[in-house]
Amino acid sequence: MRMFRNDYSEGAAPEVLAALIATNNEQCVGYTEGDPHCERARRLIREACGRDDVDVEFAIGGTSTNLVCINGMTYEWEGAICTPDAHINAHETGAVAATGRSVLPTRDQDGFLSPDEAERVWRYQTGTGRHMTKPRMIYISNTTELGGVWSLSRFDAICDWAKSHDLKVFVDGARLGSALTSPAADGLTLQHLAARADAFYIGGTKNGLLFGEAVVIADPDLKEAFPYLIKERGGLMAKGRLLGVQFEAAFTPNENGRIPYWEHARNANDCAFRLREELISLGFEAYGDAPSNQQFFVFEPAIAQAFADAAGCEIFGELPGGKLLTRFVCSWATTEKDVDELIAFARTL
Amino acid sequence: MRMFRNDYSEGAAPEVLAALIATNNEQCVGYTEGDPHCERARRLIREACGRDDVDVEFAIGGTSTNLVCINGMTYEWEGAICTPDAHINAHETGAVAATGRSVLPTRDQDGFLSPDEAERVWRYQTGTGRHMTKPRMIYISNTTELGGVWSLSRFDAICDWAKSHDLKVFVDGARLGSALTSPAADGLTLQHLAARADAFYIGGTKNGLLFGEAVVIADPDLKEAFPYLIKERGGLMAKGRLLGVQFEAAFTPNENGRIPYWEHARNANDCAFRLREELISLGFEAYGDAPSNQQFFVFEPAIAQAFADAAGCEIFGELPGGKLLTRFVCSWATTEKDVDELIAFARTL
Amino acid sequence: MRMFRNDYSEGAAPEVLAALIATNNEQCVGYTEGDPHCERARRLIREACGRDDVDVEFAIGGTSTNLVCINGMTYEWEGAICTPDAHINAHETGAVAATGRSVLPTRDQDGFLSPDEAERVWRYQTGTGRHMTKPRMIYISNTTELGGVWSLSRFDAICDWAKSHDLKVFVDGARLGSALTSPAADGLTLQHLAARADAFYIGGTKNGLLFGEAVVIADPDLKEAFPYLIKERGGLMAKGRLLGVQFEAAFTPNENGRIPYWEHARNANDCAFRLREELISLGFEAYGDAPSNQQFFVFEPAIAQAFADAAGCEIFGELPGGKLLTRFVCSWATTEKDVDELIAFARTL
Amino acid sequence: MRMFRNDYSEGAAPEVLAALIATNNEQCVGYTEGDPHCERARRLIREACGRDDVDVEFAIGGTSTNLVCINGMTYEWEGAICTPDAHINAHETGAVAATGRSVLPTRDQDGFLSPDEAERVWRYQTGTGRHMTKPRMIYISNTTELGGVWSLSRFDAICDWAKSHDLKVFVDGARLGSALTSPAADGLTLQHLAARADAFYIGGTKNGLLFGEAVVIADPDLKEAFPYLIKERGGLMAKGRLLGVQFEAAFTPNENGRIPYWEHARNANDCAFRLREELISLGFEAYGDAPSNQQFFVFEPAIAQAFADAAGCEIFGELPGGKLLTRFVCSWATTEKDVDELIAFARTL
Repeated sequence: MRMFRNDYSEGAAPEVLAALIATNNEQCVGYTEGDPHCERARRLIREACGRDDVDVEFAIGGTSTNLVCINGMTYEWEGAICTPDAHINAHETGAVAATGRSVLPTRDQDGFLSPDEAERVWRYQTGTGRHMTKPRMIYISNTTELGGVWSLSRFDAICDWAKSHDLKVFVDGARLGSALTSPAADGLTLQHLAARADAFYIGGTKNGLLFGEAVVIADPDLKEAFPYLIKERGGLMAKGRLLGVQFEAAFTPNENGRIPYWEHARNANDCAFRLREELISLGFEAYGDAPSNQQFFVFEPAIAQAFADAAGCEIFGELPGGKLLTRFVCSWATTEKDVDELIAFARTL
Repeated sequence: MRMFRNDYSEGAAPEVLAALIATNNEQCVGYTEGDPHCERARRLIREACGRDDVDVEFAIGGTSTNLVCINGMTYEWEGAICTPDAHINAHETGAVAATGRSVLPTRDQDGFLSPDEAERVWRYQTGTGRHMTKPRMIYISNTTELGGVWSLSRFDAICDWAKSHDLKVFVDGARLGSALTSPAADGLTLQHLAARADAFYIGGTKNGLLFGEAVVIADPDLKEAFPYLIKERGGLMAKGRLLGVQFEAAFTPNENGRIPYWEHARNANDCAFRLREELISLGFEAYGDAPSNQQFFVFEPAIAQAFADAAGCEIFGELPGGKLLTRFVCSWATTEKDVDELIAFARTL
Repeated sequence: MRMFRNDYSEGAAPEVLAALIATNNEQCVGYTEGDPHCERARRLIREACGRDDVDVEFAIGGTSTNLVCINGMTYEWEGAICTPDAHINAHETGAVAATGRSVLPTRDQDGFLSPDEAERVWRYQTGTGRHMTKPRMIYISNTTELGGVWSLSRFDAICDWAKSHDLKVFVDGARLGSALTSPAADGLTLQHLAARADAFYIGGTKNGLLFGEAVVIADPDLKEAFPYLIKERGGLMAKGRLLGVQFEAAFTPNENGRIPYWEHARNANDCAFRLREELISLGFEAYGDAPSNQQFFVFEPAIAQAFADAAGCEIFGELPGGKLLTRFVCSWATTEKDVDELIAFARTL
Repeated sequence: MRMFRNDYSEGAAPEVLAALIATNNEQCVGYTEGDPHCERARRLIREACGRDDVDVEFAIGGTSTNLVCINGMTYEWEGAICTPDAHINAHETGAVAATGRSVLPTRDQDGFLSPDEAERVWRYQTGTGRHMTKPRMIYISNTTELGGVWSLSRFDAICDWAKSHDLKVFVDGARLGSALTSPAADGLTLQHLAARADAFYIGGTKNGLLFGEAVVIADPDLKEAFPYLIKERGGLMAKGRLLGVQFEAAFTPNENGRIPYWEHARNANDCAFRLREELISLGFEAYGDAPSNQQFFVFEPAIAQAFADAAGCEIFGELPGGKLLTRFVCSWATTEKDVDELIAFARTL
């Protein structure tokens, strides 16, 4: 059975792999510095964002992107307000601290940074002047760590709050495809996001690329910083065209006139939604509301283990009462048949 | 009226100032590297600690000490477990992050790091291997941010927990004098602390010195690191003898055979205890239990402001309901008469 | 005409690309943490090195590898002795400084770190104790920046010197294939290098991989540090198997029983040697002795520009007298026919 | 005999010590944040500089000042051009690298940064764009490491060069008193220096204070950064008034209407000049031209050792031929009689 472990288990989506093969023998200038593929990918992404004035840069993964962007948008004595479960706070081995910047977590428990909690942290941190780390930006991720999806109104509310406090907005888009193609986006589009965020990234690694994130930068500080920092932090690829080739493929309309990047995300979402409905209809207990390609369930330990063994789904931790929080992830590679097999297996439990 | 704002408002205690004057014209080697005053201070402190095998180093203030010690006791991908109100987490402008290390706060609300909360953080941080910052040490302060004092049994419990998890123990002793001379120490002595902590510091700045902290180091990593890091981080004084002269004076028995360092701390505590009792007897509301030289009260805003204006006491913030948390601090320089004046003023409110 | 600009102009060598295609649909665990391809690549590399006790880790490029390794082999107050033209000193945008470590260049002008110059720097840096950065390791690269190749005796001499001073040895092997297959290696083998270096890397990016360096680690400090640092510095790939798949392909014997990694390097060298001989025989002036896949020539400006326009070769700078230092690079992808075309063009100048 | 080892061997000059004693019992707000002494010192220094628009901040020593200022004037991927013997390059244990910034030494051998060498480094570093550390500032010290003094014309020349390359100018003034009171200043005044430098510091530690440097800041970036960075790097004193009290004393005219700071420097220079003349007249060999409070001589080893034993002068190293470079330093505390004694001793050798 296909594993539902995560969305970076497979290699590349077909059109991405095909592009890598087709361009393999080309000789290109290195370092994403002007090869035709990077240039075309930049243009396609600018068009998709509806902005000509943004820089589009590339990175090899989320941690590299996050640390370079936060570094480039702040000074050493500043920090980023985020939720406690934010990837930068919880899962990046101190990568932000390693650049000297501080992570300033709120107490938001649902993965969404709220204006109220952000305000509380902001007041606390600015109460004694230079004796405390100064908030300079907010970090949010879409989808959130628990698969949540930012709606237009919720996104506008946190942006309004941030702007009213002169804070920059950064959006971690490791799973941006899944987020923006979810019904829960409720009007939040790539164009709107690009219009309001100071920087964000369009995640490729978890949506059909071998690797790669496209960073969209409106912030003047980060525009200056990114080219240097991505090199200084070791994130600049010699064969930079690999990033261009892949994003070019992902954002070039296919024969049906559709953009593969969004098609892959829709597929991941559709599989995840069906998996959710079916498991619920079988009597299993869903955890929270994750209208995206990650689905969380609460199982008795034996059931959780059975799913983990058969479908590679990850056990996130023990909840009060002893049940286990378990995650299923669908990807561009997941098929209807894969979900059918999982459901058939679930019926046997 | 004397200000009760903090314990670093005045200059030096008499014997410290006298020693600075007496030694002013001596020519000494620099950088705390072997001048007779630093050497004698080291010997006096080792004797007070009851350990010959520790290194005694000097620093100019608490933030410098904390960042050098945490840096020297950990690797970049490691961090220090502490309470959320810990000075390193709240009030040092990202100084630990600026060395690349992470601060890992628990949810302890009373200023004391508890084994339960430390265990929760430890489990969380070590759950996914290298993808999260690895706890390597605990950071506690004595007294705590809110004036709490570690008892022998409480201290042993957190040390036991730390050692059972192979974590180092570091004690921020900015107000160690007040802590160890408090009745609430309940058996916790300097010797015991020195026997169990991997490193700690004896705070001079807040107990009668112009400036200076004496760092007692048992940890082999920090023994190697400190001399280099204190220079690299800009904390090494050219006229290093100033630190030796002051600590020598503070730890040399006076004509009554008493150690000035502890005498000053006892005076600060005694003044603070009397202030507390008197204000309570006048009907004011004490906040928490702070058996040390800091006393916290909860006042109506007008009262808080009156105290702030007259006695320089600091308003820490608004509590739910609108009352203000207000702090009085006594020091080596506070006298019985000063407290009398404050109480007399309080009677007029 | 094929560009002779650099050895990372093309995509992947055939067997590497084939392996990526063949494994594309496999579902693998992420992060190089135990997928079968990384494990097999590790085993193949350990065997090639003749050591079972080394860790083999992966990184995406040279700068990432260098900064993680130097970070993990040293403390903050330490540094790496290297030549002034060393990549870490000249071409990595302060990447080592960004980890807080110091680069300690000698005055060696030929790209080879010499015991005499290393000794001079070591004496200077250790002359005043903690007031200066402490040398902890040497950094050498093979080939050197100017295409030089370390012979067995030269390598042993610098290793002997380093060990006699308790310094670790790190070898930047971005072009290790070219170096070890060069006649100038004169007995220096991968096994010998692995036996003496505390850490080194086998460069894939410049020898037929899309990207990737295999880091061979004997140093216990770096063994502990690497897994954390590669994540903290943003260098850990989600689809880590890509590194395993590529190195597995590069080190698996082909149908002729030959290891593609070394075959590609030999091809690059052979093309470069022929190019050198032919250009010299045409009367052009070679610069220095570069017995590897990079060849340096000194041209009149017009000639240099003609080569740059036609063959993409890079102009490194102006020499005294006004001639231009120009570099030709051959790679796994360069063919005899490509060299023929270049020589034919050269005859026209 | 008085040691001629360095200018930080003694405590404080009389008026500085007197001020510390006189103000000891005052209660002041902490952290240099508005106490009357810091405010008066700031005003006196602004007046001496002839600029109202500069910020005046305080630090405890040269390394702390240098690292905070360079940090605050640059980004991570930038660096400071300086001479190879610059304190930041040679004697601060990697303090600049520890902030992530790079030190970019020229080949100037005489301690003075020359426009030609600075230009060479600038061209080299900016030749390949973001792949190399970007120069953003120059660092010079006055006096230089070898006691050199910047003349007006030399200073203007390097400032002109820097400005023409959009580089900031920072002057390390650890011995600024000696430099500006030297005849070799040849018209370079504090006002002129303040008019052209983006930041510089007036060294107190080596000219009569217990410790302390006054940092004069015109650069807007550093104005914003300094208050945060000095705290984050551990350089902020709790009893900040100590810095204000001392600089206030040093810059308040004495009963003869003279500024003690300059008087002390003149005394140190005068003693040094006499020492130089007398030793030369005795046939000893001066090294270079150091028209300031440091004097360098070249002695046979036995002579050098005799001076070191008797007068504490420091042996800097062995010159080709086996003679030893030896330094004598005079300070505010050196008297005519001290020099007489040294010369009398020299006659016996």
